[in-house]
Amino acid sequence: MAVTLYLIRHGIAVDRHEGMDDEIRPLTVKGRQKTAEVAQQLKTLRLEFSQILTSPLTRARQTAEILLQAGLSNQVNVTDTLSPMGSFVDWLDWLKGYNQPGQEKAIALVGHEPALSQWAELLLWREARGVLSLKKAGIIGLTVPDKIDPLGNTILFWLTPPRFLILS
Amino acid sequence: MAVTLYLIRHGIAVDRHEGMDDEIRPLTVKGRQKTAEVAQQLKTLRLEFSQILTSPLTRARQTAEILLQAGLSNQVNVTDTLSPMGSFVDWLDWLKGYNQPGQEKAIALVGHEPALSQWAELLLWREARGVLSLKKAGIIGLTVPDKIDPLGNTILFWLTPPRFLILS
Repeated sequence: MAVTLYLIRHGIAVDRHEGMDDEIRPLTVKGRQKTAEVAQQLKTLRLEFSQILTSPLTRARQTAEILLQAGLSNQVNVTDTLSPMGSFVDWLDWLKGYNQPGQEKAIALVGHEPALSQWAELLLWREARGVLSLKKAGIIGLTVPDKIDPLGNTILFWLTPPRFLILS
Repeated sequence: MAVTLYLIRHGIAVDRHEGMDDEIRPLTVKGRQKTAEVAQQLKTLRLEFSQILTSPLTRARQTAEILLQAGLSNQVNVTDTLSPMGSFVDWLDWLKGYNQPGQEKAIALVGHEPALSQWAELLLWREARGVLSLKKAGIIGLTVPDKIDPLGNTILFWLTPPRFLILS
């Protein structure tokens, strides 16, 4: 028994520019479309999430909303832990509280780089070297054990950019 | 500039049993079919390999042959380095000789577990912890730099089991 995490990076957003708060940068038209295609492919692959957790930033919430609309889950919850400033320690605490022995769950976490790939590396190898490439709307799939320390005992079973999921 | 490696594990083979040399175990009918579906999907994704290198064992050679027949490359070469007994040091020496600065190449390496995922881990993190799950007919995609030490400077851009590539 274990929890399966799908770490999903938000889709392509409008560029940073002066006068626009980074927190409200929305997805571009292309970003919405590509994210929707990824979501559709996940549905075709019969993935299902007991919940989708997302960073509070607009580009992440919009990505989570697209996953919800594709029918991949029934609920989206917003958490500051997944914001760009979220700490791995807080996130790990949350994960340990969530990952109860005997409950098998698959959840999607929508957030930002470099946090997502670094957290994955910390779970896998206990150190982050920046060797996992997580593209926008890309996915990292992890199996996190529930009865032993997840650090160093997590398994990577999937890492994909959108281009290997959708044909354009 | 860098070399792109696609480490591909052989497809499902007939079980080990007494009286059959492990080296000649062939793919099962299901193994051939699934491998062909993966190969077809790689073709649809427009992947192309300047060559396919394979372990000399039957199940690996058959897997390489299926990739060749799908039109993913023009040549298959057999190398003992990719056999289950091949050493990482020999393989790394070969890789360094092959990975000439200024030449961009994509090659497919067909081999066995646990060697393939361990070699990937050594390139990525300089140590193998067994945290990468490489299924039969699954793929690991690595970008290996050509001007600096590949150990610790290689990037993982893809890891997929067949089930996320083909729909059955």
